[in-house]
Amino acid sequence: MVSAGFDMTALLRPGLPDGEPRWSGDPPFNFVGGHNDPASVPFGGLAEAAAVALARHGPALARYNLGGSPQGHLPLREFIAAALDRRAQMPTDPSDVLVTSGSLQALDLVNAALLAPGDAVVVEEATYAGTLSRLAEQGAEVHGVGLDREGIRIDHLDETLSTLAARGRRPKFVYTIPTVQNPTGTVMGVERRHQLLEVARRHGVAIFEDDCYADLVFDGQRPPTIRSLDGGGGQVVYCGSFSKTLAPALRVGYIVADWPVMGRLLALKTDAGSGALEQIVVAEYANSHFDAHVAQLTTVLNRKCQAMAAALRERLGGVAEFEPPRGGIFLWASLPAGVDTAELVGPAAAAGVEFNPGAGWCVDPAYGARRMRLCFGHLEEQAIAEGIGALAAVVRAHLD
Amino acid sequence: MVSAGFDMTALLRPGLPDGEPRWSGDPPFNFVGGHNDPASVPFGGLAEAAAVALARHGPALARYNLGGSPQGHLPLREFIAAALDRRAQMPTDPSDVLVTSGSLQALDLVNAALLAPGDAVVVEEATYAGTLSRLAEQGAEVHGVGLDREGIRIDHLDETLSTLAARGRRPKFVYTIPTVQNPTGTVMGVERRHQLLEVARRHGVAIFEDDCYADLVFDGQRPPTIRSLDGGGGQVVYCGSFSKTLAPALRVGYIVADWPVMGRLLALKTDAGSGALEQIVVAEYANSHFDAHVAQLTTVLNRKCQAMAAALRERLGGVAEFEPPRGGIFLWASLPAGVDTAELVGPAAAAGVEFNPGAGWCVDPAYGARRMRLCFGHLEEQAIAEGIGALAAVVRAHLD
Repeated sequence: MVSAGFDMTALLRPGLPDGEPRWSGDPPFNFVGGHNDPASVPFGGLAEAAAVALARHGPALARYNLGGSPQGHLPLREFIAAALDRRAQMPTDPSDVLVTSGSLQALDLVNAALLAPGDAVVVEEATYAGTLSRLAEQGAEVHGVGLDREGIRIDHLDETLSTLAARGRRPKFVYTIPTVQNPTGTVMGVERRHQLLEVARRHGVAIFEDDCYADLVFDGQRPPTIRSLDGGGGQVVYCGSFSKTLAPALRVGYIVADWPVMGRLLALKTDAGSGALEQIVVAEYANSHFDAHVAQLTTVLNRKCQAMAAALRERLGGVAEFEPPRGGIFLWASLPAGVDTAELVGPAAAAGVEFNPGAGWCVDPAYGARRMRLCFGHLEEQAIAEGIGALAAVVRAHLD
Repeated sequence: MVSAGFDMTALLRPGLPDGEPRWSGDPPFNFVGGHNDPASVPFGGLAEAAAVALARHGPALARYNLGGSPQGHLPLREFIAAALDRRAQMPTDPSDVLVTSGSLQALDLVNAALLAPGDAVVVEEATYAGTLSRLAEQGAEVHGVGLDREGIRIDHLDETLSTLAARGRRPKFVYTIPTVQNPTGTVMGVERRHQLLEVARRHGVAIFEDDCYADLVFDGQRPPTIRSLDGGGGQVVYCGSFSKTLAPALRVGYIVADWPVMGRLLALKTDAGSGALEQIVVAEYANSHFDAHVAQLTTVLNRKCQAMAAALRERLGGVAEFEPPRGGIFLWASLPAGVDTAELVGPAAAAGVEFNPGAGWCVDPAYGARRMRLCFGHLEEQAIAEGIGALAAVVRAHLD
């Protein structure tokens, strides 16, 4: 074609995010994102489950939502409800469960239902980067609350809400990750959960409880959910996921909410249902294998966590500080004051290491600057040690 | 709990869509939506494919996007590219393909990339309801262009674009469903496609080509895509789906676009990837079975279409008018002037029949009022005849 052609980029709307670069592969020492242990993916069990599930539900695939409720495959919602009762002391009705395409869609739906531009939201001062980017995209006013070894600090939360109230501002909700907090790996105790409910209720603020990592507590002591402690109080909307317990490339998450909030969420879920093959396979697999699988996976992740902690102590002792996470797949480390971990990204990549610099995980990027999130879920223990060694060399060169 | 509890609905943002009613099951004669033939779902083949795909890619599920590009599973993108070349004369590079969670996500991403509130868009005067509702939600100004037996009328399009240009308005794109138009079932010829490209280019307007039903042309004569006729001209963004060819409950669609539009779409796709299990299973199944499966399915759908057409002629001859669709799963019928098919919904439901009233499928609801979309994909031929009989009784009672 001789003409220069048509420039569709001239039609892009203003304010669009920058384009993604072309994907160019991962480094050998991949400590980013929420990747999990490849050897623990139960692919044989999933294949058996797929055979059973397709024989049982195959023809129903010809209908949107398998011919059932847009809330998702009923046996999957029944499993989720039973597991929440058994594992998190939260009796749940399957009709209060909405299956989503990963917990990211759960975040999108709850945010879309509750937040108008300019609305205030309270989050933990270090929290999931995907939540922070979503809240920024929605034009929310985000207030961070300090953390300690049990998660969100109640004194600071009460103070923040009171200060906002004095300015005539009432946040829509407190977004919290109480069990295996992302990125700090803390677990909130029961008493703290009650206090959180009390303070939020006193201020007329809902709670959005993100429990994505809650099945991966290393000592198996998963506390009751905040939603369960609320009883039928209507104050808490809850989300969870199979991404961390089965496989992140499966996109199966869920929301637990009361009708009529559920009805409003459903009206926003205009995707004609989440993928049914993943739903029927996960339901079939999880019904027989979930608890045993999670126990095995948690053991592996705990070992990997110890390996990363040991490597950090050995190679960056006195330089990188961290609290051992109580579960999950990542560790939150701090470097000495003055270090900006974003400046380490380039040299680390040259050394084959990728990590999440802390600023993206913090409401106040300055607070996050010297911090980093390191995922230990993906690599084998030997590779974790090697990767931390390579990272340590980069850090020490930077400090010199 | 004695207290009245917390009313989260008081926190919902203004302007939210109404809540969905609780799902209460489908009627016996279900002529709505895009449901397909249950007996044609290749669930045995999908189970075999799942076993092979999980053995091959199972451990990769531990990583988001299977450890690969966020554009989706490469073997699936390779299949899509090869199928578009083979079946639609569109040589395609897999790096120009983005796998989406159904074609609905494709619509969302393209709309989000191109449309700011108030932007103008041109669509066919009768078109996919999901597109119309999305455009309304985005605050787009929607202009309908008349249809004939080949789809969008070029004279009317040129006139519409000229009128808008005289008012200083230039639409962002023409959204078209050229092959098995939804809801009319027409197929646009090659010459018309060239004309559409020429008019759109002359007016500086992009084309959004939605080819979701294009594999289901009854006579197998699928024309080249508009995007292929544009060569590398950059004027067309394209989407397709496996919902209609494999199963609607599978949520696997795709966009074909040039970089850097692709990079901007990717930046908007913040879902951590579409479901990988569906991607690996569809890729594995489609590689060996797609063409044969689609040939079989199309034969079945053609037979069902004949059954519905015969029933309509027999039971509503002289009342319901329609052009036989050239493919797909639905038929677009018109009742006599003055009838509002929305008024038939209640009586039809009482008779066990559900259909899509035409207003939702039309830019001008008044144009659509006497029309209805009837999906013949789902029911068996005998049930189609019975359901049309029940519907005919409702229509005749209404006319009396």
